[in-house]
Parts: sequence; structure tokens; C-alpha cells
Amino acid sequence: VSLNLAFEEAPLRGSISFISQSGTLGNYLMLLARAKGYSFRAFVSSGNQAVLEATDFLEYFGQDEGTKAIILYLEGLQDASRFAKVVRNIVPQKPILIYKAGRFDVGVRAALSHTASIAGNDRIFDSFCQQVGLIRCYDPLHTFDMAVALTTQPLPKGKRVAIISGGGGYCVTMAEAACAWGLEVPTLDYATAQKIKEILHPFAPFPLNPVDAASDVRPMTYARVIDILMGLDYIDGVFMMIPFMFEFQLRSAAAIRELVDATEIICGLPAKYGKPILGNMIPRVSVGPALDLFQKAGIPFFATQDESARAMSGLVRYAQIISLAKEVPFSAEKPRFPRADQPIAYVSRVDPVNIPERD
Amino acid sequence: VSLNLAFEEAPLRGSISFISQSGTLGNYLMLLARAKGYSFRAFVSSGNQAVLEATDFLEYFGQDEGTKAIILYLEGLQDASRFAKVVRNIVPQKPILIYKAGRFDVGVRAALSHTASIAGNDRIFDSFCQQVGLIRCYDPLHTFDMAVALTTQPLPKGKRVAIISGGGGYCVTMAEAACAWGLEVPTLDYATAQKIKEILHPFAPFPLNPVDAASDVRPMTYARVIDILMGLDYIDGVFMMIPFMFEFQLRSAAAIRELVDATEIICGLPAKYGKPILGNMIPRVSVGPALDLFQKAGIPFFATQDESARAMSGLVRYAQIISLAKEVPFSAEKPRFPRADQPIAYVSRVDPVNIPERD
Repeated sequence: VSLNLAFEEAPLRGSISFISQSGTLGNYLMLLARAKGYSFRAFVSSGNQAVLEATDFLEYFGQDEGTKAIILYLEGLQDASRFAKVVRNIVPQKPILIYKAGRFDVGVRAALSHTASIAGNDRIFDSFCQQVGLIRCYDPLHTFDMAVALTTQPLPKGKRVAIISGGGGYCVTMAEAACAWGLEVPTLDYATAQKIKEILHPFAPFPLNPVDAASDVRPMTYARVIDILMGLDYIDGVFMMIPFMFEFQLRSAAAIRELVDATEIICGLPAKYGKPILGNMIPRVSVGPALDLFQKAGIPFFATQDESARAMSGLVRYAQIISLAKEVPFSAEKPRFPRADQPIAYVSRVDPVNIPERD
Repeated sequence: VSLNLAFEEAPLRGSISFISQSGTLGNYLMLLARAKGYSFRAFVSSGNQAVLEATDFLEYFGQDEGTKAIILYLEGLQDASRFAKVVRNIVPQKPILIYKAGRFDVGVRAALSHTASIAGNDRIFDSFCQQVGLIRCYDPLHTFDMAVALTTQPLPKGKRVAIISGGGGYCVTMAEAACAWGLEVPTLDYATAQKIKEILHPFAPFPLNPVDAASDVRPMTYARVIDILMGLDYIDGVFMMIPFMFEFQLRSAAAIRELVDATEIICGLPAKYGKPILGNMIPRVSVGPALDLFQKAGIPFFATQDESARAMSGLVRYAQIISLAKEVPFSAEKPRFPRADQPIAYVSRVDPVNIPERD
């Protein structure tokens, strides 16, 4: 059953449950997320929390088998120790992504005015997230990008990624976005690069990673190269922007057959290797059977490189949380997760307008 | 005349000219930008720059009267000193926004592979941008959000903003996004807050800034409050998310008249006060005459709070560049713009996956 306790429009079917302390904002975020093609299992607004609070809904979705990831929009917490206990129980089973107001003083002021919430000390909240294994985002929409990957793809063992595309510019910007989100893009070993080179057009650049297929439109090129990349022990996941959804791929029966064969191979790779694949594509101009096959196989496609990079970083982050949770036995007293020594998140994005005074 | 020297689809009419060193990526970015409703004057791809290079196109658009802002996607530079000279001549007249590959080593590697460009030392490039007054973005799409505001709204005198919405959650998240982009959200003085309080519903929270109008659907409320906010000497610009584009505003002739009157007032405020207004709205569910009137008046509406915040930060940044350019006489030898002492941009966004080792 899909729940919608807040607004008139029913969210699409999916396995993400979204708990928002703000009804209007929650609805707004849902509409933005749905415009991106994301689907949901449930959306509840806990409002000023006079009767039920966010933790009650969290507990419910923690036990709900149809929910694979939980997103929280919070302005403040009423009972932090109960919240922590509920979170600790859920996190080993499913990821919880959170956006919480109060990173800046004015946000604290606005939250108090809106839902009478005490947002609290943000550094303490940040440490708290680290300790209980919450994945904190600083933009509410980032939680959605990460949740989509977390509900569809296997968790990576590390943060080393490969990138393949028919477009060199995509390779460049995807590589930069991946690094900006803390991922690594290792250079391919020579033997593998040679093997891939033989699959590509002769005029394609030597494949170092990113692999620039130089406008190759043959679907099987990508299926074969991605299979090789996914099999490498130093690659934990793959980003792809591949020319599978263009009109010209539907030019003949033979072309469509190759397209479908190649798509089927790629769709099977995440399960074959236990590693995630994330795609990029241009929304609303994509056509043909590949789109539908990828969707059925649960391979998510994002519009921008920043979105897919942060989605992969969410997978990496949750994999780290899971592995720490297994190593350190449960203790209500001691922190299970280390806190960040340098909360560099506090300064991120501030620089664009801060031209320092001249000396 | 609208130029399009790269791909088949003609960009919509506007005053932003976009020069991309990558044809495929440029086309991809154009499609993403157009899906957001942005329009362009020209799009050229300079490719591997065998004949004409990016600087030639830059020089052209610098003199083109129909171009009000220029966006560059670059993977490397051939003649940096000529580029610098051209940029310095253009910047006092119109803003130049740039995304350049090479922030990370792998981006350098990918750019070399793609267009044989030497991306160069990124810290040096960053200082270079500061010196010549280029607005550098770390995500190619950010250049578009900023350019839209720069081609439609007046430049602010400072970075202090007011926020108004019918939704408290928007107030919270918009305030946080504004701070994340280096803007300030000052508390209103008591007399002004009292004056605004009398316009709002009695149950609305006391207006401190953000002004939470508590689901007020009367258009004239927003017109009157925004007029007051724009007139304050300690407010340099306004963010608004207002219920003007909903179906229920069209319920009667009287309702439509109030809607149109209020919209007309708001449309006149940027010119009246010489300050920018940026809006947020939910794409594809907005209806009615306000949408069209705002568009004709050049008041841009963005989907997310992060987009509008960075658009405002682009306005603030360019205003700072212009004012420095006026103060410091031109000199080809000495830097006209200070370089950032702490390139904190290098660590931004890296934190989400960096859980430190446990001790």
C-alpha cells in the first residue's frame, strides 16, 4: 500500500519513503523529484508533531518491507535519544538520508518560526549523524538522488570508479564531478587498456579511464567494454553515458536487435559483479526499448554528472557505514561512528561570492 | 541573428552566448538548460580549435550587442595572454562565466585525451580567474543559472537578501541555501517587521526575515510586503516563492484582477529600486497570467533553492568585479583582482564520502 498522508497527489510507486516535517516543502520536493522520474513508496508530513512525530514514522518505515531507503526532512528533534535508538536499529538494514535545517543561524531562526523547532547546535548534529550512521545532505534534493541509487543498485566495495562515454566532454566533466564527490578514477592497467582499445574505433584515444569511445554508436562496443571494466578488481562501480536512446538506433531490425542484446548484457552486469552502474542521459529526448529495459533492470539514469556522482557517493557512504556497523558491536553509550575532525562541509559552496578584500 | 554553429537544434532566443570546446557536451548542456526554460542567443563549438579558437568567438560576442552574458566551457587554453587581454576588455561591459576542466588530475588526463588540451595548473587558473574578473563555476550547469539572472536582473549593491514565501519550509531551506552561497539574511528592524505583520494573516509568525506568510494566498499581500522589503537600505535583493501560479488564483474575475495587479506591482520593483528579485516555482505545474507577465518582465524563476541562491551569488560576484574594475586602473602587468588566499573550493563537496578512519 502506498501511503500519502499529506497532499492530494499520489506519489508514483517505488521503494523510497519520505518523511517531511514540512508539508508544503515536502510536496514541493516530491514534485521536483517526480519531474526527474523518481518514484516513491510513501510520503508523510509530520508537521508540528503535536501527536505523532518523525521518529514514529521512521520506526514504521524501518519495519516496512516495501521501504528500501528512508528520507527525512527535519527542522528539529523532540527526543534525540529515542531518535538515535530507532536510527541505530534501522541503519544496518536500510539507509536513512537526512536534510536538517540549522546549518546556519538564519536557518535556526526560520525553523523556530516555522515549526517551533529548536534546530540545536549544528556541529553536534553533524557528529551525531556520523555516530549513528545517518547520511546527511546539505541540499534536500541530494537525498533523493542518493536514495534512487541506494534502492536499485548493489553497494560498491570501495570508491574507485570507471567512466565510459561516446562523448569526450562527458568523460571530462564526469571525472571532475566524481572527484568533487570524493570518488577515485584509477588509470587502467596496460593489458586491460589494450584489450579495450581493440574493441573501440581505431581513431578513439587510448583508453586510460575515462574511456572515450569517440562517438562510437555501436551498442555492443559499450556492452563489451563495460563488462571488462566491471570485472576489474580495482574498479568498484561504473558511470556511463551511452548512445542507446537515440532515434538512429531504431533504423533497422538488425540495429534494434543489437541494441536490445547490448542493453540486456549491461542490465545483467550489476548482479554478475555485485557492483553498481549509474547512467546519465538527456531527459525527454530519449527513445526506444533500451530506456524501458534499463528501467526494468533498475539501472538509474540521471540528468547531470553532479547528480550521478553524488548518487554514487551515497552508495559508497552507505557501504562504509554498513561495514563499520558490522565491525563495532552495538553500544548505546559509545559512538559507533567516528566524527569528522574537520567539518569542511561548513565552508563548502561559500567561496563563490567571497572575493577577499584587496590588501 | 541567432548563431548555431554546432548542432541541428536551434537554441531559443535570448541574450546568453555559449562557447563550448566540446560539441557533444555543449549540446547536452544546452538541452538540459533548455529543459529548465533558459534561452540563448548563440551556441558555438570551438572543438579542437584547429582554425578558430575560443578566444576568437569570445572577442566576437564581446562586441555583439545582443549578447549580455558569455558562458565558456574550456578544456584548455592556447594563448593565455591574448585570452586575458580579451577577457579584461569584455568584463567591465558584460559578465563572463567559465567552467574549465582540470580541477582534478583525472580531469586533466581526460581533457588531454579528448581535445589534446593542456589543462594546466588549476590553482594558477583559479588565481587567473580572480585577476581578470572571470566568474568560475565548478559545475557547468551553474554557469547557466547565473547567466539567466545576470541577463535579466539589476546588480545588487551588496549580498544581503530578504526571503518571502507562503511556505515555512521554503523559508528555511532558501535561507540555508543563501548562506551556503555566501549571502546574508539580515533580521528585519522592529518597525518594518511591525508594518509587515499588519499585512499578514494574524496567525502568521512574526516576520523576522525570512517572512513566512503562513499559506496566505492573497496576491496583494506579497506585492505589498515585497515592496517594503525592496525599499530597505539594508536589503540588496529578494527571493520569493509565491502562490501566484496555482489554479485556484483563476477562480473568478475579481481574483484574476487582484492577481494581475499584484503581479504588475512586483514586476516593476527591480527597476523601481535597482535591486534584483529571483523567484522559485515548481516547473510544469504552474499556470495562469502571472507566469507570462513575470517572464515578460524578466523576473527569472528557478526550480530549486540552490539554483536561485547560486544565481543571486553570481549577481553579487559580478557586482563586486565591476566595482573593483572601476576602482583599479587597467594594468596588463599587475593583477587587478586579488586572488583567494584559501582555495577552499578544492575541498568543497568532497566530504560526503570521507568518513575518517576510526582511532
